[in-house]
Amino acid sequence: MKFEIKERDAAGRICRFTTPHGTVTTPNLMPVINPNKLLITPQEMRNWFHTEILITNSYIINKHERLHKEALSKGVHKLIKFDGAIMTDSGTFQSYVYGDVAVDPLEIVAFQRDIGSDIGTILDVFGTPDQTKAAARQGIGETVKRAKASVSLKGEMALACPIQGSIYPELRQRCAQQVSNIDADFFPIGGVVPLMENQRYTDLVKVILASKKGLTPAKPVHLFGAGHPLIFPLAVALGCDFFDSSAYAKYAQDERMIFYWGTEKLEDMSALPCSCPVCSNHTAAELKELERKERIVELAKHNLYVSYEEINKIKHAISTGTLWELVERRATCNPYLLEAMNVLRIEDHKSFLEYYEPVSKPTALFYTGSQTIHRPGVYRLHTRLFKRFRPSSNQAVAFPEGKKPYSAGYEEQIKKIRKKNTQIAILIDSHLGPVPLELDEMYPYAQSVFPKISDIETEDAATALFDSFTKNMDVLSWKGNSTLTKLKTSEKEVDRDAQRISAVCDMQFGRGCGDVLLGGDIAVVKSKKTDKIRNVYCNGRHILSMRASDGLFTLKLDGAKILHKKIPFPLLRVVVHDDAVPFIKEGKSVFAKFVTDCDEELRPLDECLIVDIKDQLLAVGRCLLNKTEMLSFSFGMAVKTREKIT
Amino acid sequence: MKFEIKERDAAGRICRFTTPHGTVTTPNLMPVINPNKLLITPQEMRNWFHTEILITNSYIINKHERLHKEALSKGVHKLIKFDGAIMTDSGTFQSYVYGDVAVDPLEIVAFQRDIGSDIGTILDVFGTPDQTKAAARQGIGETVKRAKASVSLKGEMALACPIQGSIYPELRQRCAQQVSNIDADFFPIGGVVPLMENQRYTDLVKVILASKKGLTPAKPVHLFGAGHPLIFPLAVALGCDFFDSSAYAKYAQDERMIFYWGTEKLEDMSALPCSCPVCSNHTAAELKELERKERIVELAKHNLYVSYEEINKIKHAISTGTLWELVERRATCNPYLLEAMNVLRIEDHKSFLEYYEPVSKPTALFYTGSQTIHRPGVYRLHTRLFKRFRPSSNQAVAFPEGKKPYSAGYEEQIKKIRKKNTQIAILIDSHLGPVPLELDEMYPYAQSVFPKISDIETEDAATALFDSFTKNMDVLSWKGNSTLTKLKTSEKEVDRDAQRISAVCDMQFGRGCGDVLLGGDIAVVKSKKTDKIRNVYCNGRHILSMRASDGLFTLKLDGAKILHKKIPFPLLRVVVHDDAVPFIKEGKSVFAKFVTDCDEELRPLDECLIVDIKDQLLAVGRCLLNKTEMLSFSFGMAVKTREKIT
Repeated sequence: MKFEIKERDAAGRICRFTTPHGTVTTPNLMPVINPNKLLITPQEMRNWFHTEILITNSYIINKHERLHKEALSKGVHKLIKFDGAIMTDSGTFQSYVYGDVAVDPLEIVAFQRDIGSDIGTILDVFGTPDQTKAAARQGIGETVKRAKASVSLKGEMALACPIQGSIYPELRQRCAQQVSNIDADFFPIGGVVPLMENQRYTDLVKVILASKKGLTPAKPVHLFGAGHPLIFPLAVALGCDFFDSSAYAKYAQDERMIFYWGTEKLEDMSALPCSCPVCSNHTAAELKELERKERIVELAKHNLYVSYEEINKIKHAISTGTLWELVERRATCNPYLLEAMNVLRIEDHKSFLEYYEPVSKPTALFYTGSQTIHRPGVYRLHTRLFKRFRPSSNQAVAFPEGKKPYSAGYEEQIKKIRKKNTQIAILIDSHLGPVPLELDEMYPYAQSVFPKISDIETEDAATALFDSFTKNMDVLSWKGNSTLTKLKTSEKEVDRDAQRISAVCDMQFGRGCGDVLLGGDIAVVKSKKTDKIRNVYCNGRHILSMRASDGLFTLKLDGAKILHKKIPFPLLRVVVHDDAVPFIKEGKSVFAKFVTDCDEELRPLDECLIVDIKDQLLAVGRCLLNKTEMLSFSFGMAVKTREKIT
Repeated sequence: MKFEIKERDAAGRICRFTTPHGTVTTPNLMPVINPNKLLITPQEMRNWFHTEILITNSYIINKHERLHKEALSKGVHKLIKFDGAIMTDSGTFQSYVYGDVAVDPLEIVAFQRDIGSDIGTILDVFGTPDQTKAAARQGIGETVKRAKASVSLKGEMALACPIQGSIYPELRQRCAQQVSNIDADFFPIGGVVPLMENQRYTDLVKVILASKKGLTPAKPVHLFGAGHPLIFPLAVALGCDFFDSSAYAKYAQDERMIFYWGTEKLEDMSALPCSCPVCSNHTAAELKELERKERIVELAKHNLYVSYEEINKIKHAISTGTLWELVERRATCNPYLLEAMNVLRIEDHKSFLEYYEPVSKPTALFYTGSQTIHRPGVYRLHTRLFKRFRPSSNQAVAFPEGKKPYSAGYEEQIKKIRKKNTQIAILIDSHLGPVPLELDEMYPYAQSVFPKISDIETEDAATALFDSFTKNMDVLSWKGNSTLTKLKTSEKEVDRDAQRISAVCDMQFGRGCGDVLLGGDIAVVKSKKTDKIRNVYCNGRHILSMRASDGLFTLKLDGAKILHKKIPFPLLRVVVHDDAVPFIKEGKSVFAKFVTDCDEELRPLDECLIVDIKDQLLAVGRCLLNKTEMLSFSFGMAVKTREKIT
């Protein structure tokens, strides 16, 4: 089955998943269908919610005489009357709820294949949060054994192999690694229902992160049993692609309404805080007066409307680069979820998430509160600032934050200072930490919106970064003439444009890349309207273009040639297989399955050099994936080629 | 026109507003109807959005020959075919947009009356944010002059007198005071559109607060020209009752979609992040493919669906006591709105808002971030803690926060400490500041949910409160036996139940009230299941019942008699007019129009003594309003009587 990334934000992604019964766009939700008792038919789901995929239980079908027979004779799609994709579950959850279920692990896989399931699930061993590590280890041993044995039976069916390992991150990660090496197609994260039921979101986040770290990024990941929209945004941001909901029906039976912020009893409602078709066509009083059977159906519809609405909000957030904003906002709905956000501050997790984070976004970074400064993208910004940027001098003058760009409004003061000392470093002491003047138009410095007064946690973090960045520098605060008298004077004139170009190049391509690119006669074309750098020429050749939207450079072929010559392999390289070379030479983009190697410092949306296995430059382009993804995916684009060697 | 409070939270309220064309429940939204170009008919609005009230422009009707004639002959309701309430505007906004409009201020009032408007608006002078203070002062002078002159013309029509005064709080407050003294019925806060257009929410909040401070609380307040749901929750929390939306149509014309977090262009949408009927029945692609005319109508419908959805979310939040949670969550959508939240931290505003804040809520206090600790209800809690609570000793042992109630899990340690020193004060060092053990079941201490690790700003604030509360105390942290050795020993045995009862009484009724109520033989009935205090008897008489839901006391009649005897007038009193006495003696509740005086320390949901003008006790009850409200409102209940004197 084809699975390819189309859009991305945070460690989340919009993927296209191709099944024998249609294409499914992820993130997506599979409503649980109990063929014995339908509240809403699959056809109604298709009509009302555009349902592309659903999940039903092969264990229930298998043990029910009539269903078993019908499923085998006409197939599961005809049995439940749905022509979209169908995943089947195997009875694992029943074994957790009811104790041992008399099913043979291999028989149930064969049965799922025989009834034509698009995705069949092995009978894994459900690991509970309270089990010992030894028991959890034994459980994953058995799960992996069954997974291996199941592969030969899958036929045309995609095989889902759940990750188990209780709440032990190292076991989750190991289990994930082991099942990744099996020829399976779909990876549910199992055994998480008890965590969600008890709002143990901190443990849930640790489990998801550990599982994702062990898993291949090239296959769909399903948070098995997660049906409440409250956790959808965070789970997607960590890399989950699928959810399944029996919650819509269970809560409806209980006369409860799902909302993105939690669940509420219909009896407690007076105004319906929702505009879905159910809530638009009824008042709360009217819903309460319906016959119970009819009411349950209406509540189930409401529950699915808002669950799909949240999926669409997530997709919209990924498209607009605002998934972290959505995650942080949703976290304010539940203190336990907010608590779980603290897990993301652990260095190891931050660096894992940073690896998947795009280097630029279509929308400005919006501050939402004390979580914002801890985002992986901000972590990256500082990593690159500390590793790649070189201040122009050890003496600096610091300004408080101005309007965007960060230095706006300080032109006169900066001129005065530079008259006295041409080389002095100018720093803005911003909510995002220190901003060297040369970088003040670069994403996300200029493309971020903070309130004038943020919270103390953010201020403390920004101050700590500033202090750490300037610990070997002599920093004066701008206080009019008193600052000027303290300045040492410098002699050499500085080309401000060259300084900015070099600094942004260092941040984007690596320390020293600015010097390499500017090693010749430089000409700069600026926007007449904004006076901002647009195109950069070196010895008459167009090497760089600065994008107005994010203040980052597009690397032109002539610039790529210089970097390729001066910067050693494997830096900035994406290496393609010989089979792909003729296509790249025609200007086609690089597909993941042809990538043989890649600089591990490259991140989604970084500029890169496309080379053959002998490191001959073929083209320049922009990465859509990171190294692990490029080497794992069999489908989809890895690099969007911009210019080919002619 | 009747206007009465039915439910309340923060300084917001759900009111019933009675008009000649039906009852309107506030907060509510008035869609703007331009009789010259209808996108959606008023009848469709009624059907789709349950529209109870709308607003149209008498200036436009007046200057259009046919409309003018028709409006006079058959009335504005028939003209625009709407049988609900209609407010009319006067041309003030047109004068702001287009310059001087040739309308006579008194003629336009008479015209509105003659066409049968339910609420007609005077032609006030629009104050812009950039005008000088002198110009603003002159503007409000003219506005107030016109308001006074308009009153005699209003007839049966309710008269709306806008508050002006640009961005000068003292002018806004003075203007509000002046129009409050006029016989007007409805108070728009005018001149705020330029603030909203430029996202100057900090100024907007200051303007609303200043206006509310000057206004009577007994009349509806309308944030004139506010149609974007982004600011609805905060505006309602500050006391606004009405909004009007031309935004739904304007944005639709511009092919933009309103969401609670902002506005987005249809062309930028791929997944529709909404489940309203429009978004449920169309994909983004389908909307884009509609004929422009049809598309505009669909977008206008979407815009109104989500605007009314936000109104319903606010009503739901008021009913469940979670309006501040909603406000704080919505503030995370926009850094300028978040910035505006800082205004609420100013002492003067905090104490204004505290005056309207109920003392208990149906739902737990939920932490959402660094805003939470600054809520007026938390401010009240600390005011009462510092003013009313007396620690049992100057020596204290401090514990970190446990499970809810705050001390849970420390039973054994506390026993050990109390063996050594029976009188020592036990304090929990919580996210909400210091919690004396005696108060750990009282709202909101036990009824609050914080993450284990909150933000540094909250921690700093809690620590500062703890330090301030204990500055004259000798506080030891609990560190096992090392703490025990440092304790002085005490001799007197302490009755823990009496201590808790006394402490909660002091917090609820005032310092010393605990001693007064417990001045006899005390018997306590506890829940067998939870071992918590339920009923308190003094000399055999039932004086108090503790509510399980919020850990606060219901004052019984026998308790009220003791307090009435020992606590001097006017403390805890609500004084009723002689005309009402017979009704109160029958056990009827107290209506606001019969209240002649009230203790200004009483807050909504505080227990109170209902007395006649000679301070004879008539009954005991629970306040629904504060003093200013009781003395201002002509309609609705002021105190819910619980037990009458027999």
